[in-house]
Amino acid sequence: MTYETLMVEVDADGIATLTLDRPEALNAFDVTMARELERFFLTDARSDDVRAVVVTGAGRAFCAGMDLSREGNVFGLDETQQPTPESIREHCASGWDDPAYADGVRDTGGRVTLAIHALPKPVIAAINGPAVGIGATMTLAMDLRLASTTARIGFVFGRLGIVPEACSTWFLPRIVGMQQALEWIYSADILTAQQAYDGRLVRSLHEPDDLLPAAQELARSFVVGRSPVALGLAKQLLYRNSAAADPLEAHLSDSLAMFHTSIADGKEGVAAFLEKRAPAFTGRASDLPRIFPARSSRSE
Amino acid sequence: MTYETLMVEVDADGIATLTLDRPEALNAFDVTMARELERFFLTDARSDDVRAVVVTGAGRAFCAGMDLSREGNVFGLDETQQPTPESIREHCASGWDDPAYADGVRDTGGRVTLAIHALPKPVIAAINGPAVGIGATMTLAMDLRLASTTARIGFVFGRLGIVPEACSTWFLPRIVGMQQALEWIYSADILTAQQAYDGRLVRSLHEPDDLLPAAQELARSFVVGRSPVALGLAKQLLYRNSAAADPLEAHLSDSLAMFHTSIADGKEGVAAFLEKRAPAFTGRASDLPRIFPARSSRSE
Amino acid sequence: MTYETLMVEVDADGIATLTLDRPEALNAFDVTMARELERFFLTDARSDDVRAVVVTGAGRAFCAGMDLSREGNVFGLDETQQPTPESIREHCASGWDDPAYADGVRDTGGRVTLAIHALPKPVIAAINGPAVGIGATMTLAMDLRLASTTARIGFVFGRLGIVPEACSTWFLPRIVGMQQALEWIYSADILTAQQAYDGRLVRSLHEPDDLLPAAQELARSFVVGRSPVALGLAKQLLYRNSAAADPLEAHLSDSLAMFHTSIADGKEGVAAFLEKRAPAFTGRASDLPRIFPARSSRSE
Repeated sequence: MTYETLMVEVDADGIATLTLDRPEALNAFDVTMARELERFFLTDARSDDVRAVVVTGAGRAFCAGMDLSREGNVFGLDETQQPTPESIREHCASGWDDPAYADGVRDTGGRVTLAIHALPKPVIAAINGPAVGIGATMTLAMDLRLASTTARIGFVFGRLGIVPEACSTWFLPRIVGMQQALEWIYSADILTAQQAYDGRLVRSLHEPDDLLPAAQELARSFVVGRSPVALGLAKQLLYRNSAAADPLEAHLSDSLAMFHTSIADGKEGVAAFLEKRAPAFTGRASDLPRIFPARSSRSE
Repeated sequence: MTYETLMVEVDADGIATLTLDRPEALNAFDVTMARELERFFLTDARSDDVRAVVVTGAGRAFCAGMDLSREGNVFGLDETQQPTPESIREHCASGWDDPAYADGVRDTGGRVTLAIHALPKPVIAAINGPAVGIGATMTLAMDLRLASTTARIGFVFGRLGIVPEACSTWFLPRIVGMQQALEWIYSADILTAQQAYDGRLVRSLHEPDDLLPAAQELARSFVVGRSPVALGLAKQLLYRNSAAADPLEAHLSDSLAMFHTSIADGKEGVAAFLEKRAPAFTGRASDLPRIFPARSSRSE
Repeated sequence: MTYETLMVEVDADGIATLTLDRPEALNAFDVTMARELERFFLTDARSDDVRAVVVTGAGRAFCAGMDLSREGNVFGLDETQQPTPESIREHCASGWDDPAYADGVRDTGGRVTLAIHALPKPVIAAINGPAVGIGATMTLAMDLRLASTTARIGFVFGRLGIVPEACSTWFLPRIVGMQQALEWIYSADILTAQQAYDGRLVRSLHEPDDLLPAAQELARSFVVGRSPVALGLAKQLLYRNSAAADPLEAHLSDSLAMFHTSIADGKEGVAAFLEKRAPAFTGRASDLPRIFPARSSRSE
């Protein structure tokens, strides 16, 4: 795993520490970083050697947001991908089913957060300093957010005349509730670490030097002695069923997931519990059973 | 903008202060007030001169609820609209697709909250005193709720043998979580301002004289120097995607919204940021790009 | 109402206290208890003599989870119901529409929580001691959770190589938010009563001897002098609309519910209010009007 803009280290327990590594630019997000993050989360982190991911920033920032030095590219699209206003209108008119849509307008930040979201393993943000714009919204697709007391978090889109992106409007109300989400998006202010904690965006605050070890220990506590299959399915179940129309949908998917785990790692887990020994799970996150039906052609 | 039951003032920054203005009746909600609120939010407040709305009550109350002096009209329907039990059963049997539905039974409070919800601008409740029944539920469709220490909030429906209305069962769990929502609806108690604050229904408490200025300043902080288009789309994205089936849906809509803003007010916003000057946005909330597909004939 | 594993008492106000009654096994959940809970919530508790339900455990535990002494039955299915891996794969491939699904793989815990959820009356958990596995997840389908200071709550599935079940992934994020839900499911730790309270899973903490009376009084405060029809519809509206795609869906169902209650118990409720006397409601929860359309063949 070699990257231009990222640094990745995986320890003996499978805790991958991914460091956004453009410290001279406050780890600003550019097209190269976007592609490397997508590759990491969609491909490299899928290795069974990786059990959980901690994301942090090199130097004093977490991520200062989209690199605005490439003028005209706020949107982060390659010029070749850039659709015309006419093509957009056409996509709108034809609804979500149009396969051209997926090949056309796609927010780069959202490609990254969808990749983070799709990884069936715990992902923890260790927000070590300023996290602004996509630097803030990318953490919403991570499962938990720990922050240094020196962190600053800014959903600053409103001040730039653009909208919150990277699927942030799906994640943010689920984490902090609707009233807090609206206020932060409307205000577009830079929040202190304490404000982010009080508003329940951040799980815990840490002294700067303690942050990364705390995030790594938390990740370790999630995976050592656990079934990667059970963890991966649990992550899918929580996100998917948080948006399901009613509990019966959850019943369909968790019944399947329970069935699959109960005839595999669950047998070992229960045996180990009854024998008062550590379990030796053999399931692999790279081979999860499918517990949801294929998406219909309509988006929901 | 002249009304029988409302008073509206718009200041130089576009902050409209709408006062429920039947102080002799504790601003009780009647059919006239309902029609005027619908007209304000669906038509008058759509003027580009209005950037945000603050709602408060004249005198000592915010809104004492449905005017029960018109006996038999708890439901707030005109007699001519009043459906028969048979027509309701027919609507139920035919499902939501029946176009007759929309012309038939419609809770008046819900017509008002849908109008509030549809305005693509910040709406802030300044709850200055008792807010009961529709007086409480109408505030749920507003984006943020500030309250005077003398406010009282009552979801009292259960005591009257009726149900919470005005789409309140959509909004309330998104604001305060499911457990708190169930308790308040079951108890049907009148909450103190402190209880409403502790339960996260109300964003902040204020001394009576400080409430309205605080709400107006908050509204001002949301709109001065901001793009009305970016704000309006952000509001739509947050509410819509809070209920979307998965983040991919958010990606489709926020990609479109980001594209549209990045080729318009976003260009000015980024230029102003790089040049360290205030932006001069030209987009208008009355001309938002469409970022969601048309509703299918099924209700979702 | 006689049971092998439950004890049920109904007082003069219609407060049913259901006690999980296998104290020698820490009230561990087995197939008999599952069937009896289903029968209670789907049938016996539907009697109009029951107005609300409080659930607690006999002895020092609430419910120690699935009885693991029946080896190979973590899933809690009868052997005759147990599907093959092939039949599951077939169900997955054919999507949710396959009617075979409902007759095939079904998590026993989910059958119970769906039965609890379907009861149109307040259900309150009085968690008097350890609540682990299904002992924890069954409380999520109850409307409110009160706990003794000696309670312990454990979503321990991850340690056993299995997934959270009983529709818990639908309920938990709606109660405590997504970040807290992910942490508890990933950690699989046993929470103290204080941790459960701080994380907003539990509504209030009580000294052991005060717990059951407090839960019963809360239940009583919800039902005395209230319309069972209004309460039942309000419960349906809150859960259903918490997951509805947009407020318009809530408007359709709450308009119908308001109409039905306003021509029945609502007339009495308003009259009693105006005459300053206690209402005498005549509606029955066993005869609720239908306010939602039939489910389509697709799951949402």
